[in-house]
Amino acid sequence: MDTKEKMEFLSKYDDFWSHLSDEEKIFVCQNTDIMSYHPGQNIHSADARCVGVLFVKSGCLRVYIMSEEGKEVTLYRVLPGEVCILSASCVLTEITFDAYVDAEELSEVVVLNAFAFSKMIKNNIYIENFSNKMKAIRFSDVMWTMQQILFFSFDRRLAIFLYEELIKNGPIIRYSHMEIAKYLGSAREVVSRMLKYFENEGIVKVSRKEIEIIDKKKLMERL
Amino acid sequence: MDTKEKMEFLSKYDDFWSHLSDEEKIFVCQNTDIMSYHPGQNIHSADARCVGVLFVKSGCLRVYIMSEEGKEVTLYRVLPGEVCILSASCVLTEITFDAYVDAEELSEVVVLNAFAFSKMIKNNIYIENFSNKMKAIRFSDVMWTMQQILFFSFDRRLAIFLYEELIKNGPIIRYSHMEIAKYLGSAREVVSRMLKYFENEGIVKVSRKEIEIIDKKKLMERL
Repeated sequence: MDTKEKMEFLSKYDDFWSHLSDEEKIFVCQNTDIMSYHPGQNIHSADARCVGVLFVKSGCLRVYIMSEEGKEVTLYRVLPGEVCILSASCVLTEITFDAYVDAEELSEVVVLNAFAFSKMIKNNIYIENFSNKMKAIRFSDVMWTMQQILFFSFDRRLAIFLYEELIKNGPIIRYSHMEIAKYLGSAREVVSRMLKYFENEGIVKVSRKEIEIIDKKKLMERL
Repeated sequence: MDTKEKMEFLSKYDDFWSHLSDEEKIFVCQNTDIMSYHPGQNIHSADARCVGVLFVKSGCLRVYIMSEEGKEVTLYRVLPGEVCILSASCVLTEITFDAYVDAEELSEVVVLNAFAFSKMIKNNIYIENFSNKMKAIRFSDVMWTMQQILFFSFDRRLAIFLYEELIKNGPIIRYSHMEIAKYLGSAREVVSRMLKYFENEGIVKVSRKEIEIIDKKKLMERL
């Protein structure tokens, strides 16, 4: 990706790009790289080096927390056109928790390194505000997830997950029970049991490799 | 509270106050009121009117979410010298969840009304940044709470609660089991059972009106 391409891509992030001077725009391009991550690859973690701000070009990133015992809870996903800010947590004084970021699909990401971003935050109030605004938006995402986990019964959460997949990708779902469990912050057994229950109710058909939604109306009654 | 007193009080909030023009400072004073809330009084909720930004002068505010069935989970507390921003959620586009704010003790609060705050955010990038920065800080608070709830076993969470009370207010704790349960996002029965267990372990002495921490060392072993 040359400078012109970087500029063209980053200019789509209006909140970020439109408040930069010409000098700062060049500084940004000098400090960004286009990276490609394969499905499941870890991009950012508490112990490893702090990558920086991730502008997602294609694919999908998963942001999650992990307990000492390795239990994962997905906080939200970052989609093309969106920004991942927690991957620059080392330079964000307001962020005091450790989040992990993985590529969930093959993902192309434009990475602005943490050092450069930190320098820009200090010198440009609009960039500081951009950084804080991105956190505020993710705060709302996390609150949504938290309410799902704390308040919704699990059948409803699984139904919401299946329904969202149905809308996005159609009635055939190829996630493993383990992957669904991770995404919902639950255990594989719980997912398998609830899917079996949904199957008995005529909502889905479960085979070893996939889950097929066979009754959208019944599924929607569980939302 | 007259204008001079308001100015003196608000000037302590440097992130907020130092970036205001003289005109804006007067505008702020015209749009603030000093309010007094009694223990347990609801200050902000999803359905009621949107109060605005709360600058806490004395006392303690509790910010929490509530399920449709009335289950509460405390997100964090706002102490003297701190700011409550979620009480202005109606004018904050990034905040899409409903939080509640109650006074936990008799609390004196300087309230900047939501309409005025919204106008200031639009006209002053430093105030927009102040608003987003406050959210980012609370994001971290909430993540801490979430990790406690999702990852820590309940005995550890209760021990942390008792230990924090010990440090703040000494060994006699006068919260009811119900209040502790609400604070920890649990049920009264669970708290009572765990307190009984702690009592059997010689950590606390539980009577009808209070909990006394009798062995600090044993308590600390559970943190």
